Amino acid sequence: MEKRADALQRLRQAHEEIVLAALRSEGPMSRTQLTDRTGLSRTTLFAIISELMERGAVIESGVEDDGRPRGRGRPATRVSLNPDAGLLIGVDLGRRRVRVAVANIARQVIATAVDDSAPDADESEQADLAVALVHKICEDRGIGLGALEGIGIGLVGVMDAPDRRWRAAERLGAAFGTRVETDNNARLAALAEQTWGAARSAEDVVYVRWSVGVGGGFISGGRLLRGAHGASGELGHVSVDPAGPRCHCGGRGCLEERIGVPALLEALASQGIRLTGTDDLLEAAQARTPAVTTVVVAAARTLGTVLAGTVAQLDPARVVVGGDLAVLGGLVLDPIRSALSELALPGTRRTPDVVPADLGPNASAMGAIALMLKEQDPLPPGPDPADL
Amino acid sequence: MEKRADALQRLRQAHEEIVLAALRSEGPMSRTQLTDRTGLSRTTLFAIISELMERGAVIESGVEDDGRPRGRGRPATRVSLNPDAGLLIGVDLGRRRVRVAVANIARQVIATAVDDSAPDADESEQADLAVALVHKICEDRGIGLGALEGIGIGLVGVMDAPDRRWRAAERLGAAFGTRVETDNNARLAALAEQTWGAARSAEDVVYVRWSVGVGGGFISGGRLLRGAHGASGELGHVSVDPAGPRCHCGGRGCLEERIGVPALLEALASQGIRLTGTDDLLEAAQARTPAVTTVVVAAARTLGTVLAGTVAQLDPARVVVGGDLAVLGGLVLDPIRSALSELALPGTRRTPDVVPADLGPNASAMGAIALMLKEQDPLPPGPDPADL
Repeated sequence: MEKRADALQRLRQAHEEIVLAALRSEGPMSRTQLTDRTGLSRTTLFAIISELMERGAVIESGVEDDGRPRGRGRPATRVSLNPDAGLLIGVDLGRRRVRVAVANIARQVIATAVDDSAPDADESEQADLAVALVHKICEDRGIGLGALEGIGIGLVGVMDAPDRRWRAAERLGAAFGTRVETDNNARLAALAEQTWGAARSAEDVVYVRWSVGVGGGFISGGRLLRGAHGASGELGHVSVDPAGPRCHCGGRGCLEERIGVPALLEALASQGIRLTGTDDLLEAAQARTPAVTTVVVAAARTLGTVLAGTVAQLDPARVVVGGDLAVLGGLVLDPIRSALSELALPGTRRTPDVVPADLGPNASAMGAIALMLKEQDPLPPGPDPADL
Repeated sequence: MEKRADALQRLRQAHEEIVLAALRSEGPMSRTQLTDRTGLSRTTLFAIISELMERGAVIESGVEDDGRPRGRGRPATRVSLNPDAGLLIGVDLGRRRVRVAVANIARQVIATAVDDSAPDADESEQADLAVALVHKICEDRGIGLGALEGIGIGLVGVMDAPDRRWRAAERLGAAFGTRVETDNNARLAALAEQTWGAARSAEDVVYVRWSVGVGGGFISGGRLLRGAHGASGELGHVSVDPAGPRCHCGGRGCLEERIGVPALLEALASQGIRLTGTDDLLEAAQARTPAVTTVVVAAARTLGTVLAGTVAQLDPARVVVGGDLAVLGGLVLDPIRSALSELALPGTRRTPDVVPADLGPNASAMGAIALMLKEQDPLPPGPDPADL
């Protein structure tokens, strides 16, 4: 049995959600109206409102229930969501960059910013960089941090110094004295794409991010999958060759070692084609340099074969391809589409759409905001993100 | 924006759940006590109780709140869960058999039964067989069907005449005039194992069923994954050889075609070892016939390689191996364990446990019951299934 304290806590959360949902969908109301609308008792409702006011999530104003002067006594006040509250910040602590996005309570992303981070930055440096970036963006845009409700933080993959970045995330939360939610940044990009981007309104999504590393995130039944250790989505560490070379994860023949940008550059170097990095590779592929397109297409085919297995297992309605390589469009999407239509239960004629990601490099920071919106808001629907 | 009617419906469900959770965890209560306990207004609470009584889910009795006679007026009544209500039936419409399990509202499976079904039975025959089996088991055990609350039905995999069985499921629901929930029977077995069996208390589980076919089910964050078309879990149709022979699903080199019982029998036949079916194969493997163990171990290794990819992607805490082959224990589990420890992000030192399934052949029928329990019961915790 669940502990009683936990059950009470859940009950209180359910009450809060009911109240916030009502205010969100119907606007300001008096306590009496809220009692009618929510079905909660007056005692419960008043307690919930007090607590929400204490936390600054709702405010009250002295407007009449019906908008007209009242005959006698003090006027009834109306309760509404605090327009200054609910400021949410998303931070993406990447391999080489820190990105920040800021959203208001209406779920509108109102500002974004980016700064380079040394690849070997320790956790203090990374935390300081992120804190400075948040302060800068808020000053530039005249955003008060007093209404900050939470910081969502995206961290790099399970194998790439997550502990160090986790400590940076903790410091960041402490610096702003607010709640912190963390998750893997590829998973957060998936969530952002589902909330605002290429996977919008799809409940079952496989998202893959193909850049230097290969990561991903899965959404099933509208929920971002986490896994037992927060490591769900590690598409890059599916073995495509169990007898292959050792990967830094300890496994063998991992997809990331086969198709990540460094592997592609190496394959090209062995053919005498020296490219210096991702941008260089993308340019050469867009210029349709034959050897480069051959290597990229073969890699996309390999990715497609792995994704066919993922699709057979997870049955998504849509596959979203993000990351640096996704800008190549059909060159990478078409081989993935062929692999899926040949290998992912073709007899069912349910091969999912394969589409490029929409949100660009801010996806993870935006996903960190989406994470907090989902967490605090399981019951009520949000406003149409098309308003964004 | 969500439609207002939907929002109200969700609100009402949230109220119901709160009331049922309170009755379930704390036993019979007066309406006054329920008002205090749930935080709902009297108006809301009374309406919810009326509706639950109408549906026979709760009953009231004329017992005093404090158990003693009352001074005057009519005695306060107490509301409790209806002990005769909540009868749930799970049916597994398998390839060759129909299985039935019956559970009371306390989530206790109180009876099970099985009958053979012709492999070519049409939907009417299969529905008739299932209806007869339910009637028989209820008569035998003196179980009244008046309190039947729902029927959960497990159907075979996505590629094996699901439409025909789906129609049988519809007929079955109509025959008993009750709500019907359906799902794939391998996924339901996963759910049963998580509710009562080998995956109990694990929130993140990969379940594989290895028999004539190869199927599976995934649980993530405590929820059974469905997929966009209800086809999540199709481990058997992960391609292990994209250039391999055509599978009945339309793909190539599918795992099921490589390690399903027919494939194993064929591999042995090509070595001159003729076995006639699953039981024969299992016996020979248990007798440690060398050629048979070699074939089985190689197949388990192949399964393990696919599962390593699944584990890298879904990050489960436990892998449960069910189906006919699971009775071979270490002979099949050990090769799976090695594959996982070599290929599934070994550097994270989070290789999941690999355990045999617990619930035997009734798992899917039991899972069909678990499905209904989960669906009607998202908020409150259930009684400890150890009581089962």
